[in-house]
Amino acid sequence: MASVYQQECEKLFQQADIRFNDTRPGDITVHDPRFYKLFLQNSRLGLGESYMDGWWDCADLELMFFKLFTSNIDISFDMKNLPFYLAALKAKIIPMGSKERSACIGPNHYDNGNTLYRLMLGPTMQYSCGYWKDAGNLDEAQTHKMELICRKLQLRPGMRVLDVGCGWGSLAKYMAEHYQVSVVGITVSQEQLEWGRQNCAGLAVDLRLLDYRDVSEQFDRVVSVGMMEHVGVKYHRVYMESVKRCLKKDGLFLLHHITTNQSKWSNLWLDKYIFPGAKPPSMREIARSSEGVFIIEDVHNFGADYHPTLMAWYENFCRHWPEIADKYNRTFYRMWEYYLLSVAAGFRARGIQLTQTVFSVDGILGGYPSVR
Amino acid sequence: MASVYQQECEKLFQQADIRFNDTRPGDITVHDPRFYKLFLQNSRLGLGESYMDGWWDCADLELMFFKLFTSNIDISFDMKNLPFYLAALKAKIIPMGSKERSACIGPNHYDNGNTLYRLMLGPTMQYSCGYWKDAGNLDEAQTHKMELICRKLQLRPGMRVLDVGCGWGSLAKYMAEHYQVSVVGITVSQEQLEWGRQNCAGLAVDLRLLDYRDVSEQFDRVVSVGMMEHVGVKYHRVYMESVKRCLKKDGLFLLHHITTNQSKWSNLWLDKYIFPGAKPPSMREIARSSEGVFIIEDVHNFGADYHPTLMAWYENFCRHWPEIADKYNRTFYRMWEYYLLSVAAGFRARGIQLTQTVFSVDGILGGYPSVR
Repeated sequence: MASVYQQECEKLFQQADIRFNDTRPGDITVHDPRFYKLFLQNSRLGLGESYMDGWWDCADLELMFFKLFTSNIDISFDMKNLPFYLAALKAKIIPMGSKERSACIGPNHYDNGNTLYRLMLGPTMQYSCGYWKDAGNLDEAQTHKMELICRKLQLRPGMRVLDVGCGWGSLAKYMAEHYQVSVVGITVSQEQLEWGRQNCAGLAVDLRLLDYRDVSEQFDRVVSVGMMEHVGVKYHRVYMESVKRCLKKDGLFLLHHITTNQSKWSNLWLDKYIFPGAKPPSMREIARSSEGVFIIEDVHNFGADYHPTLMAWYENFCRHWPEIADKYNRTFYRMWEYYLLSVAAGFRARGIQLTQTVFSVDGILGGYPSVR
Repeated sequence: MASVYQQECEKLFQQADIRFNDTRPGDITVHDPRFYKLFLQNSRLGLGESYMDGWWDCADLELMFFKLFTSNIDISFDMKNLPFYLAALKAKIIPMGSKERSACIGPNHYDNGNTLYRLMLGPTMQYSCGYWKDAGNLDEAQTHKMELICRKLQLRPGMRVLDVGCGWGSLAKYMAEHYQVSVVGITVSQEQLEWGRQNCAGLAVDLRLLDYRDVSEQFDRVVSVGMMEHVGVKYHRVYMESVKRCLKKDGLFLLHHITTNQSKWSNLWLDKYIFPGAKPPSMREIARSSEGVFIIEDVHNFGADYHPTLMAWYENFCRHWPEIADKYNRTFYRMWEYYLLSVAAGFRARGIQLTQTVFSVDGILGGYPSVR
């Protein structure tokens, strides 16, 4: 007979048309009945941890999450939960983004073996949302994204560009090769730096292990892709002012990041296992931290494109898993699967967004033409 | 010999390359030396009032303001000024946008004689920024703007559209004629309503004298052009929630308004003589008031297009002045000239913006394609 915990879970998930131990693709098969109690106690965190431990399975995990997110029940159970408030409190007491904790992000996440990322991301080595307009596959979408950025930045030969959070240097390489600009790229990951330097050898690209607060030169353009999520709300203003300090008066700054429409957004599981200390900025936080610092020239939301991007990463990850399985364990595999598919569903459900914002210092005379 | 007031003014305006009693187009010719003291005491308000009174002239008023705004000295003298703080205090004590004060906006500004507006705005009767991409004159720019709005709203035959702040009904008319939708338009101006009803006779357009808080029906689309400036910061959230209440779950909402990158923005002269109780929302205020209410799908800044729009209005105003001069006095003429040219310069200098934001209720599945 079903426990009260199971009954409670069934009632909750029914609102999202998800059943337990049924056979439809988005239904959940529970292997260990401790799942029900753990989920009710720890909600989203418990859901993820119990999946990692193999307590439940789902034939179409992405679909399950899509049903969950579009029904909006996930938010309600996070908000009334004790761990949620403790995490919020912890974030108040220990602000994210201090130099000390920023330095951990590299080792924790981005140094997770270049091999894993190379196999998952493919030859473009872009660990951020692709631009799928007119693209047939991941590599094209990532190339289109880099091209889109260059066009939005109105790059011209000889310009100096700062890439804040340059990853493995692929965007820097693309800009230098296709637009004859010279690029300074900064990262806090030693592994990214080493790979990036080889990746950009022979080009006008200078990659450095450096915090964004410590750049002291001036540039024609600044670009930052998938890095604002790691800055921390407390430091958003410092970040904006640091970029402004590096930007010439007629310069442009392109900021590419995941965005929420809730400043209180949190995901305890992602925070614990995938992106420690990270939080996607809300539109409100971006507008607040840039107020009086920059003019917002353009905002482009293509969050729906993160769904095919993440699904392509997942496909690559599964196909290449045999090549790296000996370096990881089964828990890692399930964690990574859970990460890619839950986030993919989040973007498909449109509850989270991806925006590219173009800023100018005082407004571009004559206006800034949107590029899409 | 120049007074200390004059010397102080000369020093200040020199920073913007503006001279007194010199002959260059952007220089100021002072007819009444009381100007200097009044300006130093009342800054922007004094500048405008003394112009209205004929104490000074300028061969190219728009150029003078452009120089002033791009030098940034206008802000500094507003901020350290007593009337500025009194106005800020007044705004705290008497919040703008109450139903009682909203009802005054019509009589004060928009009932200023339909004839004046007809002659100034031309046949499109659009009292908002035109879209000058591929446009050769004001009428084309205004038609392009209406077409742009329809395309952004993805109008399809049979849809029901709510137009909040419908002006003289021209957008409602355009949508009904070109996209076969039915439109409910609301305004708080009796004169606009009467004109609008004639303007839209025979079409599926229903214009009403109604506050935005009192709409009780549901629509496929909501559009609001040049009206958010009159809502008042305190009521931004109420406004957003009112629109959401009127919008179907898969609906779209397009908001078109002047925007600032400073929430504390104020212009005492404009507030006193042209737009009582109005304030352009900042990006921060829009993001804050829509947070958790809507998903921001697209933000389009074409503030530079307000410069040619205002200059075309000024040209029409001057050309047609003889036809209406008997209804007004010389002070009105100078006031109106000062209004159009100072605001035109503000947009050319890019210190103020014009944005169209497209919102959805829960995010459009598959993504929302930007239209430009």
